[in-house]
Parts: sequence; structure tokens; C-alpha cells
Amino acid sequence: MPKARINIDRVFHALCDPTRRAILDKLGAGPCSVSRLAAPLDITLTAVVQHLQVLEESGLVQTEKLGRVRTCRIETAGFSALEQWIRDRRSMWERRLDQLGDLLDSEEGE
Amino acid sequence: MPKARINIDRVFHALCDPTRRAILDKLGAGPCSVSRLAAPLDITLTAVVQHLQVLEESGLVQTEKLGRVRTCRIETAGFSALEQWIRDRRSMWERRLDQLGDLLDSEEGE
Repeated sequence: MPKARINIDRVFHALCDPTRRAILDKLGAGPCSVSRLAAPLDITLTAVVQHLQVLEESGLVQTEKLGRVRTCRIETAGFSALEQWIRDRRSMWERRLDQLGDLLDSEEGE
Repeated sequence: MPKARINIDRVFHALCDPTRRAILDKLGAGPCSVSRLAAPLDITLTAVVQHLQVLEESGLVQTEKLGRVRTCRIETAGFSALEQWIRDRRSMWERRLDQLGDLLDSEEGE
């Protein structure tokens, strides 16, 4: 999924589920098949597939089917969108604090 | 709320609601009273108070009551915890890619 099409709503929705974050942590250690992902999570294969679909649609995971095995790996686009979301907010606050500082400086100068 | 006590589960839960993200964006422009926050959001004061409670418990907002007016402002601790969560994951992937690179280098050298 190209970065431009990442929907931040979907990214937050995907990340607010602890099982989906556990899947991401597992994939952080390297690509993995769906069945190997399901084993330690103590949930059904169907549930894992559903979680993976949410993660894939939000640009946090990519999956590829080779023969009968679907392999999943981290997709960085969703994470980059999340980082950008925070960066945009931080720069807004910093700009505001700068303006406040300028205002206080100009009042002192009067 | 001190940074050490931020619960990342709560941060994600708080951020996955678009109204709560709209509240944060509004507060990004500067501190604001609860009633001024509620006006453009087209939701009841009670609903805003509930959203603010979630945001406060997750370390994204702080509120202070002076007389009859409760003023809300951005609290950066929750955002810092979120940034740290992403940084930890990125460093895990990068370490893995480094190890993979080392392995390929050593195989080439054999």
C-alpha cells in the first residue's frame, strides 16, 4: 500500500487492539507464516487472518501467498504515517510556543 | 501523569477515536476551556468531559480547574510514549536487517 493512501484512522484502529500489536511484535523478529503466527497467540487461525486483514488494510503488514503458504511481514508505510502524524502535531505546538515567546519578547521591549 | 506511568494500551485506545483526535488538534492551537472545546465539535458537554477523561488518563491532555472554569491543554507524556513505542520497533527491525546483512556477508566470504 503506497504511503499516500494510508488512512490514519485505520492505523489507529488497527493499533488499538493488543492482539494486533502482538502480531506486529512477532513480525518484528522476521517474516512468518500465518499458522506460525497463530500458534503462540492462542487464537484461531480465522481470527489471525481477520487481524492480518485489518493490519494489511492499514499499511502495517504485507502478506504474500506462495503456493499454500501465506507469509506476512512488517510494512513500514503505516508506521511512517503514524510518525508523521505525531511530527505534524509537535511542530504545531512548537510553532505556537515560538509565537508566544515572540509575543512576550515584544511586550518586554515595549 | 508522569511518563513512567503511561500505559500504551490507553494511549492507543484514546487515539483511535476521531473526536478525541479532533480535541487534541484543537488543543494544539493553545489551552482551551471545556465549553469552548465543545462548541465546534457539535457534541454535548457531557460527551466532551468523558472524552477529556480518557485523554487525561492516557497522558495526552491535562486539565486544571480554576474557579468554575476547567482549562485543558496538551500533555506531551502520552505522545512521547507513542514515539518511544515506534522507535523501539524500528530499532528491532533495523537490528534484524543488520544481522541479516552480516549473515549474507559471512556467507559470501565462505
